[in-house]
Parts: sequence; structure tokens; C-alpha cells
Amino acid sequence: MKRAFLYPELADYTKKKKKAEVVFKNARVLNVFTEEILPGDVACQNGVIVGIGAYDGVEEVDCGGKILVPGFLDGHLHMESTLVTPSELVKNAVGFGTTTYIIDPHEAANVAGADGIDYLIRDTEHVPANVFVMMPSCVPATFFEDNGGSFSAQDMAAYRDHPRVLGLGEVMDFPSVEAVEPSMMEKLALFQDRVMDGHAPNLTEQQLQLYALAGIRTDHEATTFAYARQEARNGMQVLIREGSAARNLDEIVQGIVEHGMNTDSFSFCTDDKHIEDIRREGHISHHIRRAIALGIPPVKAIQMATINTARTYGLRHLGAIRAGAQADLVLLDDLETVSIADVYYRGKNVREMEPRPVVPNENLTQTVHIKPVRLEQLALPVDGEGDVIGVIPGQLITQHQRAVLPQAGGFFTPNGEYNKIAVVERHHATGKMAVGAIAGFGITGGAIASSVSHDSHNIIVVGDNDPDMLLAIQELERTGGGYTITAGAKVCHTLPLPILGLISDWPHEKVDKRVKEMTALAYQMGVNPGISPFITLSFMALPVIPELRLTARGMFDVVKFAFCDERGSWDGGTAG
Amino acid sequence: MKRAFLYPELADYTKKKKKAEVVFKNARVLNVFTEEILPGDVACQNGVIVGIGAYDGVEEVDCGGKILVPGFLDGHLHMESTLVTPSELVKNAVGFGTTTYIIDPHEAANVAGADGIDYLIRDTEHVPANVFVMMPSCVPATFFEDNGGSFSAQDMAAYRDHPRVLGLGEVMDFPSVEAVEPSMMEKLALFQDRVMDGHAPNLTEQQLQLYALAGIRTDHEATTFAYARQEARNGMQVLIREGSAARNLDEIVQGIVEHGMNTDSFSFCTDDKHIEDIRREGHISHHIRRAIALGIPPVKAIQMATINTARTYGLRHLGAIRAGAQADLVLLDDLETVSIADVYYRGKNVREMEPRPVVPNENLTQTVHIKPVRLEQLALPVDGEGDVIGVIPGQLITQHQRAVLPQAGGFFTPNGEYNKIAVVERHHATGKMAVGAIAGFGITGGAIASSVSHDSHNIIVVGDNDPDMLLAIQELERTGGGYTITAGAKVCHTLPLPILGLISDWPHEKVDKRVKEMTALAYQMGVNPGISPFITLSFMALPVIPELRLTARGMFDVVKFAFCDERGSWDGGTAG
Repeated sequence: MKRAFLYPELADYTKKKKKAEVVFKNARVLNVFTEEILPGDVACQNGVIVGIGAYDGVEEVDCGGKILVPGFLDGHLHMESTLVTPSELVKNAVGFGTTTYIIDPHEAANVAGADGIDYLIRDTEHVPANVFVMMPSCVPATFFEDNGGSFSAQDMAAYRDHPRVLGLGEVMDFPSVEAVEPSMMEKLALFQDRVMDGHAPNLTEQQLQLYALAGIRTDHEATTFAYARQEARNGMQVLIREGSAARNLDEIVQGIVEHGMNTDSFSFCTDDKHIEDIRREGHISHHIRRAIALGIPPVKAIQMATINTARTYGLRHLGAIRAGAQADLVLLDDLETVSIADVYYRGKNVREMEPRPVVPNENLTQTVHIKPVRLEQLALPVDGEGDVIGVIPGQLITQHQRAVLPQAGGFFTPNGEYNKIAVVERHHATGKMAVGAIAGFGITGGAIASSVSHDSHNIIVVGDNDPDMLLAIQELERTGGGYTITAGAKVCHTLPLPILGLISDWPHEKVDKRVKEMTALAYQMGVNPGISPFITLSFMALPVIPELRLTARGMFDVVKFAFCDERGSWDGGTAG
Repeated sequence: MKRAFLYPELADYTKKKKKAEVVFKNARVLNVFTEEILPGDVACQNGVIVGIGAYDGVEEVDCGGKILVPGFLDGHLHMESTLVTPSELVKNAVGFGTTTYIIDPHEAANVAGADGIDYLIRDTEHVPANVFVMMPSCVPATFFEDNGGSFSAQDMAAYRDHPRVLGLGEVMDFPSVEAVEPSMMEKLALFQDRVMDGHAPNLTEQQLQLYALAGIRTDHEATTFAYARQEARNGMQVLIREGSAARNLDEIVQGIVEHGMNTDSFSFCTDDKHIEDIRREGHISHHIRRAIALGIPPVKAIQMATINTARTYGLRHLGAIRAGAQADLVLLDDLETVSIADVYYRGKNVREMEPRPVVPNENLTQTVHIKPVRLEQLALPVDGEGDVIGVIPGQLITQHQRAVLPQAGGFFTPNGEYNKIAVVERHHATGKMAVGAIAGFGITGGAIASSVSHDSHNIIVVGDNDPDMLLAIQELERTGGGYTITAGAKVCHTLPLPILGLISDWPHEKVDKRVKEMTALAYQMGVNPGISPFITLSFMALPVIPELRLTARGMFDVVKFAFCDERGSWDGGTAG
């Protein structure tokens, strides 16, 4: 990444010939290189740390002996998954100390291609945080996806030299890497000398080596310490994920502590985290706190949240408090509890900074186009044992179950144990849709639906009766996307997500409130308390995470990387 | 650094669909990321590690349970200082496990500008090691130097995208950095997003911060642990130097051990190491062995010699044994003693590889041009107390002593305690020369001279009588540069260094033998056993290392960064 050469104009502030614009007085400063906490004043000019020692400033912030640590980095996240606009997300999350976000806008790209990416870049141009972008590598996620936009190596080339583009986003399509598939090779070749993120659950040792050979440098899909260690052995940085649905931190960190493992190969990321979870438990600050609770020394935990990630992504000006680094700082009352007193971005208190969001164009706000669905299209014929998606609490992976489903007249009759699930294509009104069975979700007396449904973001709905499922689909068509819950032939609650069908234009407080109400209602309706209703639902159509998923074309066996069969798969043009 | 995208042709070897060209069977493999030693076969194809596990190869090397570690990296060295051609040096040193050399060809550039750099690049094109080049940043070293060539930011720009150029070489001229001197700023701006090496002895805390603010990322001049730690605090990588003259390892490593310091910020370099010292005690292997002896765990010591350095210089394909890394390997009988069984570069045994040296052009072999020196020009008038260069055994820094020198008739009469030292311009026959006094060198009954004299590489001579000093100057003019010792009006021994006046065209064995004979003779003649006669001499004219030096223009006070006075300074055009 090219940066301006600011030294000539900053040197006089280091030399104390000029007074720096802001000085953090009487701090105890965490040095992530030497792992020391040293007393000093931190002088900042033009958003850059120009000196640490005894300094006077034009403005002075008395730290009163509190601890100054570098701003935290989230190594991998999808901002679209937080339901609020990128600028609204940053405005909220930065207060929890995360001053750098390395985003993969692949949800936006899946809905609207390059236009979606441009929206995220533009909306994060003027926010009180660093937002870097990885180029979505798998849009569409697979060749058989029915998503809204595509993003090829040719499309990426135009972004390669963008100052906020760091490399290639999570390469989820491992089969294409393994098969040396030409369009994937083009993308890898384009970013060979840059950071390329992986997305590699459950690979064999040999497959992980193939991934490393291809130049993949990170992964955030490890769910066990043994797997994380195997990735580290291959020189990959393990981005320990703790989001709303996927919570992998405890298992990995317990292993690190137990094995006395060097923490250099580990960083933190959220991947997908809902705004209400951020507000409840924090952001990367939560990772740090949890890691400390599990036995990681506080300084090491903060390294994992700062310098380890900055180093991985070649962000030399971030992740440390030293002369020449950007003045992104978190003031902690206490190192053990990570109690945050204040957060500073480029030397300014983030509470005093307002993002300047952009207004999305119409092509980004009118993205739900559905061919009308008839009730009978939701019927699922069954005959003997059938495929069932088995939800696993706290995990993104599902189980591929086989079960004899409850039925009447040759058709599946869902109940609280076995819910019905359906996916409806919503970008080009093709009429493609599919229906299946799911265990472990648990909704009764209604349906729950979403237009956030990785990665194609078609309409996904789960319920125990067809009329409520149909109503939920119709409600999301009406609102241009969103979350909805229906019961007894009525819409109970909807959160409209008009931007790309993924993002609300409401402030986060209002989104939070609505999501909380809807989540509470979902649990009241029987949803498994071990899952997060909307987040878990949103991953049930993603055909790149094992073991079984439902796409608009039918049940997909991710392990075999093939559709299960034609049963349960309708095409609007031919069915009914 | 851009590298070819080799994955498509290598993947089949990882998958075992094709047999790799060489497999290291039954190894115990050191993983520098996880700090484990794991059993496995290491499969290599086209010089790249394609897999670790159970592999069969076209050729198989039975490691018999020995330990395979990554090839070592020398983070900073001047190949010209080894007296042999670059290709000859590599051929010799690589057997000690150093498979990567990050060189700063600033000696060659000081004699012949870009032509000198090109010679080093060309001569290391076909050697069994990786040779990367840092652009010499201070040629000439100061504005008042009388050297042979210059190398500006404009000259560097042409090299910026060379695949073996990594960044800006040691920025020795700290005063220009501090003073925001425009031509220095041009160089820093040019390499702002690349690695920039420092060279910073004895800076204050504030000056070190200024250095870090300017973007300097490394330093190899730390002589104490406290100073090294201060550099680490600024995010700089400390390249712990252990060469022929400067031996800083023990002090720094003892501090690391004593303070239980994280070793991530430390790497190894030789800077300047003579071939006979390499053959006697090893190269980077010696650093590792010594660090272990001082209490660094062996795995950490090897990290300091491998991955720490590779990471610092952005050499992602080096410094580790993992799929996708280059197959530069060292086979160790034992990890504690670092006893080297074999060394492999790109999967091939270096004993079976021959470098292909280039023949230097005439402009590189006829570089000594001296205006004839008369005996009376060596006379040094003295009056009361005078400046004396105080040699410190094992250090590059000198003491600025003041002493009443022995004299006769108003002229200095050197003896074993106070030797005479002279520097004669040798590039453009300008006739510039200067004479001074030096303590702690100790030669009696003759003189010792060299055309290797950092950084201007003028003729430098030390002795206890003028006739032998003059004869030594004349001898080096005759041989086109070299080392010589004279005694009793006779030349005792000469090592001709016809290439740039710095490098021999002999094989290293012959150079070794001659240097050994000459060094032994120097000690017989009284030279201080705590110094290395020729290496120590070669630094006495370098006006950027404190405290006192002699240049062709006179005694220079490095602390004040000013000439002491006019006394002892002759200009050929006006003196005599």
C-alpha cells in the first residue's frame, strides 16, 4: 500500500520545535514489540504519533496513568452482515476499540457486483476508522449459484491499486483451487504478491498444503485447536473467529494455552457479527477479554488484536504505538478487564467524530425481484428416508442427516422437530425455488424469513406451515428485503433491509430494538436457544460449508460437492 | 517483490499425482511458526517445497532422522568486504547454511557508482543462494567525501522494480535525516513503502523516534542491549551484528536472556566478515551457536536466523519449511550444536553447485589513481595537545582522545603507543591527503596499508615510520589496490585487490592463506591482539561512526560532525 511521505512536515514535532496538536499526557503505554508497559506522553500530529516521552501539546488529554494500547484490528468481516450501513456499523463498533476493519464486501458483490463493492468503499470513505477491502474471490460462490452479480479477475484488476485494497478475499471455493480451475488461477495470479485470505474448513493436511502452495495466507474457519495448529504449521495466520453465529475462540484459545503455543500465528476476527451482539459484549474487545479469561497473558491477547493482524496484512503504520504509526489508540482503565475508557482514531476521540454516509442509488435499493410463488410450490413430496439439514448450535457447519420425515398424503408435514425450509431466487425473478427439511431449528406456529442468505442472498424461509412461509416471502418482496416473522397468517414483525436486501437505513438503535424483539419472538416460537435465529438461517443456503445446504436449485451435499437429487427442487418455469 | 505464479504446475506434486524431483526422506522438520519438530518427508519440485508428509521422489535423500531447518538469512552484509568476488563468497559461505544474503553494495558504489552495483548484481545472478540488494543510500557517505562514484535518488529509481532489489540500504547519514535534507528526503520518499535499513549508533531516544518516523525499519549498529531494546520499542528490527571487527552479539543476547525478552524483533547479520573468519567459525551459523550458548532456546535462535529476517524483508517464500516456500534447507546433525551435515539451495546440495562468476570490465579493475606522494607530506606538525583516534578492541566506534604526542623538531614521532595514520585520495588523483595520530593500534617497525577503507575507499596507512608508510602507499598503487605490509623499507606481503581496489580475483583459499600470513605478521609487528588489523584499519576513515576519524581532508569529529581543524590536513594542490 502506498502512503504519503509525511516525515518532512512531521519531524519538527518530534524534535519539539513545534507543539503537537494533541498530546496524551501521563499514559502508561503498551509496547507490542517489547511487551513492556512504559510511562510517557504520546504526541500526535496530523493523525500520526510523532513522539513518546515528555511532550506538551496544543490540546492535552490527561490519561491519569491509564493504559494506552493500539486500536484493535478486525482481520476479516462482512459489514453487510451487521444489518446497518457500513458507516453506521463503524460509528458504533469503533467505540469498542476496533479502529481497523478488513472487509470482504462479497455479500454486496453477490447482490450487485462491482456496484455493491463501490457502495461499501464510498460509505466507508469518511468514517472514524480504517476500512480496508479484500476483493471478493468467489462471486458467485459456485458456478451453479443464482445470485445477483458477478465479479471476475478482470473486474478485480481495476481495484488492484486502490489505496484501500489489500488483496484477495476469502477463497472459499477450494475445489476450484484444487482442480487448478482457470478462472480461479487468474485471481490467484493477480494477487500472488499480496495477501490472499482463505476459507478452509475441514481440509485434509494435504489439501491445506495445496492451499498454502497457492499462496493463501490466512484462514478464519478453524473450529478446533488441532486444525488451527495445522494451518499455522503451513505459515497461515489463523484469524480466530468469534461472531454472532460462529464462536470458535474458546476451543482454539484453550488449545493455545494448554500447549503453550506461540501466539504469533493467531489474530482475531468477527466475520459476521450482529449489531446487538456487538453492543452487548463488544467487538474485538470481546475476543481479547475472553482470551485473557482463558489464560492468555493480556499483552499477548492485545498483540493478537493488533500487531499480529497489522503484520499479516502489511499494515506497517497500524497495530502499534510508536513514532511513525497512525494515532489509533484505545485508553484502558485496566489491562486485565479491557475496560475501555476512550477510543481515538488518528488522535481524535471517536465520540466527537461523525461519519459522512453516502445515499445509495436506486440500483442498490431495489434489488428484490421475485416471480410470484404459489402455495403448492411449497409442498415437499416425501417417500421413505430423506435428506435433512441438521443444525449444530454455535457452528456454521451442518450435519447431513437422513430421516423418515413426518408426512401426510405423500407430503412432508413439518413440526417443531423437523421444520420446512425453502429458498426462492430473488434477483432476476427466475422463479427458481427449492424446498427441504431441517432439524434443530425448532420454530412452531409460524415462519421466519430473510433476504440475507449467504452468499446468493435469495429469500430463505423456515417454518412449520406453508401459509405462514408464503406470507413471509411476500412480506420480504414488499419491503425490498429484510427479516420477517409470520404466525397465524399474520406478519408479526419485519425489519426492512432496503439496501441490497441486506442493509437497513435505520440507525442502529432502532435496528437493534427490532432485531431483539424479533429474536425474542423467535425463541418464544420455539427456536432452538442454542442458535441465533436469523444468522443461523442465513447460512443454510451456503453451498461451500459442509455438510448439507439448500439452494434455490435444491439440496446440496457440500462434502460430495453435488446436488443430492432432483427431489425437492422446483423450477418456476416447469413445476406446478 | 513480484514472483512467478507456479502453483498450476506444482499442484500435481503436492497431490502425489506426479513424483517430486527430490524428496528429503525421514527428516525431523523444524516448523518456525509453531516451534515444533515434526517427522516427515519434504518433497521439492522446481526448487519449491510442494509437500511435507509421506512422499516418494525421483531422487531421494535419506535424512536418517536428522533435523531439517530453513536456510539461514544474513540480514545485512557488504560482500565487497569479504575480499573475494561475490560469487566466490557465496560458494564458500553457503556451506555454512546461509542461503540468503541481503547485501548493500555501497562499497562498490563508492568506488564506481552504478557500475559497481551492476557488477555485484551480475556476479550473484548464478550462485547457489538468494542475493537481494538494498540500494546504497549514502554514496558518497557525506558531502565532503572524496570517493569514486555517486548514487542519487534518480539513479536508484531505475533499480526500484528490479526483482532482487528490496529497498533502501543503511541510511548512515542520520544528520541529513534529522535536518530534513532534500536529497535524503527524495530517497526516503522513493522507498517509503519498502524496507529501509538504518545505521544508527548512539542516537538519543528522540533521534531514534525521528528515524522510525522517517520509515527506517532496521538497524545493525546496536552494541548494547539497552540500545537494541530502545530500537525494538520503535518497531525496528535489530539485526544483531557479529562480523570480523564488530562483535555485538554477546552483549545484546545476554540482555535478551536476562530480561526474558521476546525475540521477534531480533535477527542476525554479519555486516562485514572476512573469509578466514567465516571459514574458522561459520557465518550466520556462528550467531545461532553463540546465541544458544548464551541461553537462547535453539528454536528461537533459528527463528532469529530465518523467519524473523524473512518477515522483516517481506521475503514470504523464505525462512520456513512449509508448502510453497523455497526449498532452501539446512540439515543438522544436532540442534544444540548446529552441526551442519548438508545445505540445500532450491532443493539441490550446494556442494554439487558451481557459481558462474562474471569477468569484470576494465572500469572495475583499474580504479587506483594517485597523485604521487612525497615523503615530507607524511610529516605531522604538533604543538601541545592534539587529537588522537583511540581504537576500542571489538568495536567500530573510536574514542576521541586528546594527548601530548611524542615529537621531535615540532613533528610527531610515532611509536608503538601512538602510531601515525594517513589517508590518500585514490580515485581521481586529486592529491588530497591527511595525516593524524592513532592510539591502540600498536604496529612497530613498519606500516600496514589498505585500499579498503570505508566508505570512500581511499588508501589508508598506519605505521611507526614515514618511509615504510610511503612504500606501502606506492605498493598499493602498483597493484591497483589491496592490503600490504612494509617493514625496513621492504614490502613484506601484499594481497592484490584489483577489482574496485576491494576484491581479489583469487580463489578464497589463496586469499585466506595470504590474509592469515599478513595478519600473523601484523601481530608479530605489535598490532593490538584485540583488533583485526586490516578490518579495524578499514574503518578508521569512516566519518559517520563516532567519535573521531581521519579522512583525506583531515581529522573529523563525528560527534560534532565537523572537521577538528586544519592542522594535519593537506591538499595536494596547495601543500608542500
